[in-house]
Amino acid sequence: MEDKKELGRHIILELYDCPEHRLNDIPLLESSLCRAAGAMGATVVTSRFHQFAPHGASGVVIIQESHLTIHTWPEYRYAAVDIFTCGEIDMERGVQYLEKALAAGHSDWRLLKRGLGLVRGQQPTNK
Amino acid sequence: MEDKKELGRHIILELYDCPEHRLNDIPLLESSLCRAAGAMGATVVTSRFHQFAPHGASGVVIIQESHLTIHTWPEYRYAAVDIFTCGEIDMERGVQYLEKALAAGHSDWRLLKRGLGLVRGQQPTNK
Repeated sequence: MEDKKELGRHIILELYDCPEHRLNDIPLLESSLCRAAGAMGATVVTSRFHQFAPHGASGVVIIQESHLTIHTWPEYRYAAVDIFTCGEIDMERGVQYLEKALAAGHSDWRLLKRGLGLVRGQQPTNK
Repeated sequence: MEDKKELGRHIILELYDCPEHRLNDIPLLESSLCRAAGAMGATVVTSRFHQFAPHGASGVVIIQESHLTIHTWPEYRYAAVDIFTCGEIDMERGVQYLEKALAAGHSDWRLLKRGLGLVRGQQPTNK
């Protein structure tokens, strides 16, 4: 393993000022996350979504390269999205897709590198 | 809404030096995440786990208060865990539970506050 190379890349995406009805629309949310995965070049393995009462939703799409999750607060027009990947994935395409799909008025995101605390120069075991 | 109060709290947990067999054991991983949710006082809604070939696993537990996810790299004895909650949840209990359940040799974690970019003083719509 290359010294101090991350194992996973994790985007923390905040979507603000989204139309409330989109944030309560489970089919739209599920298709948006799956299509965002496709836009990044990722492969969807499985997904699960849940509608909360009286409003709000949570969902996850497991991809071959890790996951996407979303939690929505329609009453604040806000959605918290995570995109976690490993491998050669164009994550910014996923961000751009979701900003449009949920019609976010504004957004911000940051990239976290995961697994950086491995012992320097640690090699994987022979599998 | 209180000024600059977060909507969600998100722990980024890195578990290192875990026994490889635990990181490939889907029933163990699933029960560990569900029990960690219980230890925090959270309510499990649904879960989904996936075993990758030749090794490694991904899983998510959706809780009433948001989610837990895990991705494992047994070949690096590493697991990336996320605990995302809203409401009054004792997240550190979940961290402690998972450190023990996966027998991590060492770990680190940090807390992110989600949804801080809401317009100051924004009130939820009347639902």
